[in-house]
Amino acid sequence: MIGMPFDVPVPRKVISTPPAVGCERWMLAVYAGLANKRLVEGLQARGVNAVGLSALDGGIARGPRKDTLRAIEDGKPKVLRGDYAGSIARIDTRLIDLLLDHGYLPVLTPPALSDAGEAINVDGDKLTLRLGLALRAHALVILSNTAGLLRDLNDPGSLVRQIDVSDPASVAAAMDAAGGRMKKKVQAGVDAVAAGIGRVIFADARVDQPVRRALAGEGTVVMASAPIGVEA
Amino acid sequence: MIGMPFDVPVPRKVISTPPAVGCERWMLAVYAGLANKRLVEGLQARGVNAVGLSALDGGIARGPRKDTLRAIEDGKPKVLRGDYAGSIARIDTRLIDLLLDHGYLPVLTPPALSDAGEAINVDGDKLTLRLGLALRAHALVILSNTAGLLRDLNDPGSLVRQIDVSDPASVAAAMDAAGGRMKKKVQAGVDAVAAGIGRVIFADARVDQPVRRALAGEGTVVMASAPIGVEA
Repeated sequence: MIGMPFDVPVPRKVISTPPAVGCERWMLAVYAGLANKRLVEGLQARGVNAVGLSALDGGIARGPRKDTLRAIEDGKPKVLRGDYAGSIARIDTRLIDLLLDHGYLPVLTPPALSDAGEAINVDGDKLTLRLGLALRAHALVILSNTAGLLRDLNDPGSLVRQIDVSDPASVAAAMDAAGGRMKKKVQAGVDAVAAGIGRVIFADARVDQPVRRALAGEGTVVMASAPIGVEA
Repeated sequence: MIGMPFDVPVPRKVISTPPAVGCERWMLAVYAGLANKRLVEGLQARGVNAVGLSALDGGIARGPRKDTLRAIEDGKPKVLRGDYAGSIARIDTRLIDLLLDHGYLPVLTPPALSDAGEAINVDGDKLTLRLGLALRAHALVILSNTAGLLRDLNDPGSLVRQIDVSDPASVAAAMDAAGGRMKKKVQAGVDAVAAGIGRVIFADARVDQPVRRALAGEGTVVMASAPIGVEA
């Protein structure tokens, strides 16, 4: 399992009328699809038989569409309808299993499928984690443009090498070190290991052989040294 | 097998420098991907377990990339490099067969894969025909915004109901009736039936249940009433 970001210019979030929101929804799918097909092209060129999918395909991820969206307009809070964001309630691994069992490498991207059968945007990291859990993945590698979790973003030497989910002090220290969006990612990684994924590794996408290096222990490794729930 | 057009604004062909051509190549993939995901969404909403693919995925269609592109610039013929058009040399049906055998409905779009592993744009009708042949399809339905092959584009009553590939006079009459791009489509349909597809049906995408109607004989049906190559 590999989560990977791309240098694709994703449009900024815009609150707008329903037709334009529909357009925005599809633009996100387009960008995601573009990144997806570029990855498939790169893998095929290297002899890896990749298959690009969205979570719509084969109903891989399903969940409710958020009915309303809260926003601030002219300084006043407003509740808007018509957004196509959603959350993941169910994962169906059958298509992924079928492809893996026959030597294909699935490359997955949002959108997912709403309960009403509409395309909904879901968070890519959450999709990766939920699928990893459903597949009982041994390891989940999340690549980005940093070396992993850094205590100081400007100091590569401040890398947190390991987060031990069975040690509350280790988890607390990691959550202290993480800022902004990284806090959410670290928490998701901790939750994933607590739920049964062997290891979650936050690693650098910008180096040669990033997956091999991450699996060899480079980056920040989230693991459990003891059964979880029993304090050391 | 269904070939289907979409009301997606495909950018006009532009001859430009290599970086922009690269962008154009991907824009075509984006539009194709968008149409693809919209179809998957519509099918999933109706309870059909669709899987959207490009011909890159699983190496479904491969062939040479055209090295050069001929164009007229300032009234002079020019040969340009850097385009990502290509042609189909080989079809690999294994991924499609795997999905069909497990109850999924594949929804396929260009681009295809070049011999060097790059995404190349190929003609959607040709991709459909080549895949139909490789799958030994009983029928191939090609939907568009006309009722089929019309002798007079403004007269729906001028529909050619049948083209009998085993009767040279029937084929000649159809080729006479077809103009412009339709001539190419009719020839491709005739070639497909000659090569072994049971029936090719050109039918109307704008009606209710277009596939059911086409398979029931509405539109223009290309077939063979006798073994081909033996003149009647």
